Amino acid sequence: MTLAVRYTAARTLDTAPAEARPPGPGEVELAPAFVGICGTDLHIFHGDMDARVAAPAVLGHEMSGRVVRVGAGVEGWQAGDAVTVMPLRWDGTCPACLMGNQHVCHNLDFLGIDSPGAMQQRWTVPASTLVRLPESLPLDRAALVEPTAVAVHDVGRAGVRAGERVVVVGGGPVGLLIALVARAAGAEVRVAELSDHRRLLAGELGITAWDPASDDVSALVQEWTQGAGADVAFEVSGAAGGVETAVDVLRVRGRLCLVAIHPRPREVNLHRFFWRELTLVGARLYDRSDFERAVALVADGTVPAERLISKVVPLTEAPAAFEALEGGGDVMKILVDCADDTRGATA
Amino acid sequence: MTLAVRYTAARTLDTAPAEARPPGPGEVELAPAFVGICGTDLHIFHGDMDARVAAPAVLGHEMSGRVVRVGAGVEGWQAGDAVTVMPLRWDGTCPACLMGNQHVCHNLDFLGIDSPGAMQQRWTVPASTLVRLPESLPLDRAALVEPTAVAVHDVGRAGVRAGERVVVVGGGPVGLLIALVARAAGAEVRVAELSDHRRLLAGELGITAWDPASDDVSALVQEWTQGAGADVAFEVSGAAGGVETAVDVLRVRGRLCLVAIHPRPREVNLHRFFWRELTLVGARLYDRSDFERAVALVADGTVPAERLISKVVPLTEAPAAFEALEGGGDVMKILVDCADDTRGATA
Repeated sequence: MTLAVRYTAARTLDTAPAEARPPGPGEVELAPAFVGICGTDLHIFHGDMDARVAAPAVLGHEMSGRVVRVGAGVEGWQAGDAVTVMPLRWDGTCPACLMGNQHVCHNLDFLGIDSPGAMQQRWTVPASTLVRLPESLPLDRAALVEPTAVAVHDVGRAGVRAGERVVVVGGGPVGLLIALVARAAGAEVRVAELSDHRRLLAGELGITAWDPASDDVSALVQEWTQGAGADVAFEVSGAAGGVETAVDVLRVRGRLCLVAIHPRPREVNLHRFFWRELTLVGARLYDRSDFERAVALVADGTVPAERLISKVVPLTEAPAAFEALEGGGDVMKILVDCADDTRGATA
Repeated sequence: MTLAVRYTAARTLDTAPAEARPPGPGEVELAPAFVGICGTDLHIFHGDMDARVAAPAVLGHEMSGRVVRVGAGVEGWQAGDAVTVMPLRWDGTCPACLMGNQHVCHNLDFLGIDSPGAMQQRWTVPASTLVRLPESLPLDRAALVEPTAVAVHDVGRAGVRAGERVVVVGGGPVGLLIALVARAAGAEVRVAELSDHRRLLAGELGITAWDPASDDVSALVQEWTQGAGADVAFEVSGAAGGVETAVDVLRVRGRLCLVAIHPRPREVNLHRFFWRELTLVGARLYDRSDFERAVALVADGTVPAERLISKVVPLTEAPAAFEALEGGGDVMKILVDCADDTRGATA
């Protein structure tokens, strides 16, 4: 019997024995090594997604691990292979899929939200979701591949080019990853982030971070860009003020990439969109090429994933880690270590 | 002495004698023939733009006319030439101009708002603003070139392609022109418009128009697009509900072109932008290529400008026409006929 972290009701997680499901045709059974706790997992924990998540639900979609066994017809994978999972299943028949946008399938099955996730000691998934990891990449760092793929997708949607000046509003894990990926694309980057801890970490990674509580971000951008405004802004804060800042800082024909989830409609300065001919582009998830690029960026250290890992907790302490995250605090990314007896070492 | 229509205070226009200004170097003196009354002119009339418009102000920027005399150094133009005016002057030195976006210059001088407009019997403008009209094009129709250039610009900003399905929210003059230009680009077009009169006119031009007060526009688009959603929506209504509809009808990765002016921030369903990876693109004014394309579309009848002209009033009755427009009513475009004794025939 293996263990799983389960969401059972609002603000309630437990760890419970789970029956490993033998891989069917086209499936693979994995032993998850590390699983990151994502903002979406916290939303589920808060009970905000009860309409979508059927309790008890195993959470987790930012993972690394190894193949344990493969089902019938699975080729190219064998026990022991290091992998991460692109946690998407699409129907292939909806209008979005038919236009080639499978990642935003109208009937998307997101593993870890709509079906069981990775925060358990055995996880059976379609072989088509696997993404190979280089053996040289430590598995704790590899758990950051999924959010890095988000950042790669976002930077691509915004069309960031070398030499452009980019403002990232919100310096949590995804915001910081966007900053790193945009910098790797040749952009100059500034981050606006309220948390001292997160600004400090950004600074340690060589990224200038402003405090919107005390700095006049718009004025700083004006100064930085000699009155032109930024080429690109990323809204990663999820806050009303974040949207306002992201719109304010842009130059004529600047692009605002909307990354954060805003559950309720927000007031948006549409006049500014008209006046400056701005573009707003929504960005969600990733496709396989984003994932493969993310593996490369984490593996070669362009994204120093280890610097974003604040803490690693054993699976049995995952519920307590969620409760601690509730209170905010000085954290970036927390990983759950799914190690079990049968796997031995965690990485 | 010639006559001019002047905005003197909120809800007050007069006609008053105006001294014709001899053209300086690089300038041309025009005899305006027809001048359209635009929504912006109505905003000025309402007093909404007093912070920008210095009364007394001569309004009007949708015009046709003929050259009367040219100033020193002006080449290529001579008395009698039929022209329209692209009513923009930019500084050439601001960040927008330096990036090639002169039409949204940070210090744009819009003739008819920021400096005297065309609703007078003599108008002196920089020769650089002139756009040549074919002699075969009647001057009343030519007064529709400016709003057609807006539509050309908007359709270009939205990147409308042949075969795409387009929803235009708001079927006033600019909305209808967008519909006609998008259709000319090969798109299938639907218009959502509250006014019976305007829907009727759209129908006469072969464009299906829905009534958002009684039709479920989102459901109709779903049906029309087999559940996919529209490729492109244009928000031309300026209403909160128009923004909502334009967002609702779009397919995954659909594009919303924001044309209307929304003076105050609007609630926008940003979650939908995220979820469907939508794009919002602001569009303002036009550049010279848009204007030249608009001349061609009006001249060859692709845009049947004469069908959009509801009424032509003499210059002395312009103030009354503004008051009548206040009440709404069954109108599309009203032209002011600037004919004077010295010009003789109006076209």
